[in-house]
Amino acid sequence: MFSAATEILERDEYMYFCSLQRMKDKINVFKQFGSTGNGGVTRYSLSKESIAARAEFVKRMLAIGAEIKTDDIANVYAFLKGSEPDLPAIVMGSHCDSVKNGGNYDGILGVMGAMEVLETVAIENIPHRHTLVAMIWTNEEGSLYLPSMMSSGIVCGDYLPLDIATKYRYEDMLHSVSQLDGSTNFKQALDASGYRGEKENRLNCRDFCAMLELHIEQGPLLEERGKDIGAVTCVIGSMVNRIKIYGQSDHAGTTPMKNRRDALYAFSRVLEYLHMKLDEIGDDLVYTTGEINCHPNIHTVIPDYVEFTLDVRNEFPEILDRAREVLDNMPSEFAGCRVEVETGWTRDTVYFDSELVSLVRQSAQELEYSFCDINSGAGHDAQFVSYMLPTAMIFVPSKDGHSHCEQEYTSPELCTKGADVLLNTVLKCDLVMHVAQKS
Amino acid sequence: MFSAATEILERDEYMYFCSLQRMKDKINVFKQFGSTGNGGVTRYSLSKESIAARAEFVKRMLAIGAEIKTDDIANVYAFLKGSEPDLPAIVMGSHCDSVKNGGNYDGILGVMGAMEVLETVAIENIPHRHTLVAMIWTNEEGSLYLPSMMSSGIVCGDYLPLDIATKYRYEDMLHSVSQLDGSTNFKQALDASGYRGEKENRLNCRDFCAMLELHIEQGPLLEERGKDIGAVTCVIGSMVNRIKIYGQSDHAGTTPMKNRRDALYAFSRVLEYLHMKLDEIGDDLVYTTGEINCHPNIHTVIPDYVEFTLDVRNEFPEILDRAREVLDNMPSEFAGCRVEVETGWTRDTVYFDSELVSLVRQSAQELEYSFCDINSGAGHDAQFVSYMLPTAMIFVPSKDGHSHCEQEYTSPELCTKGADVLLNTVLKCDLVMHVAQKS
Repeated sequence: MFSAATEILERDEYMYFCSLQRMKDKINVFKQFGSTGNGGVTRYSLSKESIAARAEFVKRMLAIGAEIKTDDIANVYAFLKGSEPDLPAIVMGSHCDSVKNGGNYDGILGVMGAMEVLETVAIENIPHRHTLVAMIWTNEEGSLYLPSMMSSGIVCGDYLPLDIATKYRYEDMLHSVSQLDGSTNFKQALDASGYRGEKENRLNCRDFCAMLELHIEQGPLLEERGKDIGAVTCVIGSMVNRIKIYGQSDHAGTTPMKNRRDALYAFSRVLEYLHMKLDEIGDDLVYTTGEINCHPNIHTVIPDYVEFTLDVRNEFPEILDRAREVLDNMPSEFAGCRVEVETGWTRDTVYFDSELVSLVRQSAQELEYSFCDINSGAGHDAQFVSYMLPTAMIFVPSKDGHSHCEQEYTSPELCTKGADVLLNTVLKCDLVMHVAQKS
Repeated sequence: MFSAATEILERDEYMYFCSLQRMKDKINVFKQFGSTGNGGVTRYSLSKESIAARAEFVKRMLAIGAEIKTDDIANVYAFLKGSEPDLPAIVMGSHCDSVKNGGNYDGILGVMGAMEVLETVAIENIPHRHTLVAMIWTNEEGSLYLPSMMSSGIVCGDYLPLDIATKYRYEDMLHSVSQLDGSTNFKQALDASGYRGEKENRLNCRDFCAMLELHIEQGPLLEERGKDIGAVTCVIGSMVNRIKIYGQSDHAGTTPMKNRRDALYAFSRVLEYLHMKLDEIGDDLVYTTGEINCHPNIHTVIPDYVEFTLDVRNEFPEILDRAREVLDNMPSEFAGCRVEVETGWTRDTVYFDSELVSLVRQSAQELEYSFCDINSGAGHDAQFVSYMLPTAMIFVPSKDGHSHCEQEYTSPELCTKGADVLLNTVLKCDLVMHVAQKS
């Protein structure tokens, strides 16, 4: 599709730049929607804070002459018409919802970056043949309505591997119940949002030809390597396990130490074991026990049951296989307690479109921004879209690698550099795709 | 008070026995109140299941001619009048509430044993000078309304060490909120129970002269030693700590292992450390981490905060001091996370009345039941009463040491042996106390 484009690109003799001033303004305005008062935001999808952010997006996009559409999952699209309206559109975007006590950059930066690109193109009258689109994905975080990446999962359902697609059936999603009040469901929130539109407006591979998502890294690597831009090659594969430990509940005061089968003590032994064995694999394997449930969780009772998660991620299947072997070969008993491993699901590494990634690298290089390839350890809507359309992502550094917390920070300068790379990648794409369409 | 009683006791030439048949009947009837259907009971204090158990107690006690009184905390007392009504009464009893999914013996055995003693005395017309009382303590477990041992804490408040007494102020207890629904409080439950009586009916040291509590051991020692009866010398002292671990919350997929400050992994390191150091102390020290809370407890997020309990128990203060030293000398950092120890409270060992304990031993010996001294690792109402009245406890074995669970079991034969010891101890007490009153 992208063949023989290089010579055409050379016609493009100069680079375009977004406005640092406008980016600062957007950061300052959007951080108010759901502000926690401690430097972060809580902005659940379709909450009134999130609706306020959408309204701001719509207002700003209408101001530059974009046309607004929404689909049946309340995804919002702002269309800036190209000179050849019959060509499929190039879409940029991310989400505006956050986790509880999240930061001011995760998701919303990709929305602000897309807005900034359209504003720059409109204000500076930059010629483009394809229609350019800025969009907001509904409910990426899944903080209130499970699962995460809900609407990209629905929209790309026909293109996803079956085991993923079945987790994102539209009808099932409508019944996803609020994790906060346990009563309202996603459908009710959709209906109340004022942003529910037509199914035919969904992102698709007939009316759209590429997708780009600007995002913060959410990790420390770009900062450690002193790079401004990450050209994201893939979202790494993962394997999620639940491990169950069965002990015996007895009285904390009356049971001699030697008579105990303490499931929580066994947990600490299992975790030590897993860290020792998984660290031996190395090769950038990351693994996390983020969730633990202990029963009966009373200070005077020896725990009889502990269940915990083990999330393991790596780009390469053979590395994940080695982690799987560690679990398979783990003793079935620790500290007198039976241990069972249950593999929840595995996700293969999703590689982004190599030619789009090349355009990202090329844009960064021509802008003279330092850059490197990087993979994404976190999931993003772009990863589902990549099953349907040529897709790529651009990362900017996260200060100290923090994300999903109020300390999350990326300077306005770096945010603007990310938008610059997004802008130039889209414009290159506009040229390349045009050539590809014609050829 | 008990001086020179031995010669009098020798007049008492034979032992009395309770009825195995009646004990079996009581076990079978009472296990139905709150039956889980899996061999155990859930019988929260003042619940309808618990009220049904009280009604059964009252019915059976009225049937043998006892007089029923209740106090302002709904403790129920059944009085079987002695031949010298002016003498203070000897009281036996325990509680009829259980933990969630508890067993058929914890607490209720002491109530059934007291009933069995009164029934035996009444049916066999055993002469006794002191009035004998069987009682039910309200809310020993504190499963629904915190804290545990609530009504003995209130009733004995004037005699308890100040730090304990202040935890059991009547007015505060009335506002204790249900742990189940978070709305109803203890006062409402009291009012609705139909068992709320007069404050003047509370157990006191004017109208009562001794208290005995029959209970299951809730541990494995009697069974391991092959003994039928434990003469309980004390409730061992304890120290409860909360340990807090502060890490850094980051994304499970994007944060390299070396950059992590994982509070849950640090927990496993701290627990290993504590087990290693506390095991070195030995000397029957028991310690338990029964409760853990992990934040944010999401499988894709590295935990930034873990809080857990450490309950440490031993009879001897110098051993508890050594455990305290382990905590004081613990490193303040594990796996990059700051660790803080907060001592919740300490309780000294409470020794039971040595002469009453002697009467328990003597009864077991004369009945030709195997017995040994034992301490209690668990708290009981008797431990608060012992600050106000001469008090002792009798233990019977718990099969495999299990308690606070549905597997809790003590054979009807052992239950009856426990009641036999209770009966004969009370009768010896009746003689001794009588002599003491006269002298």
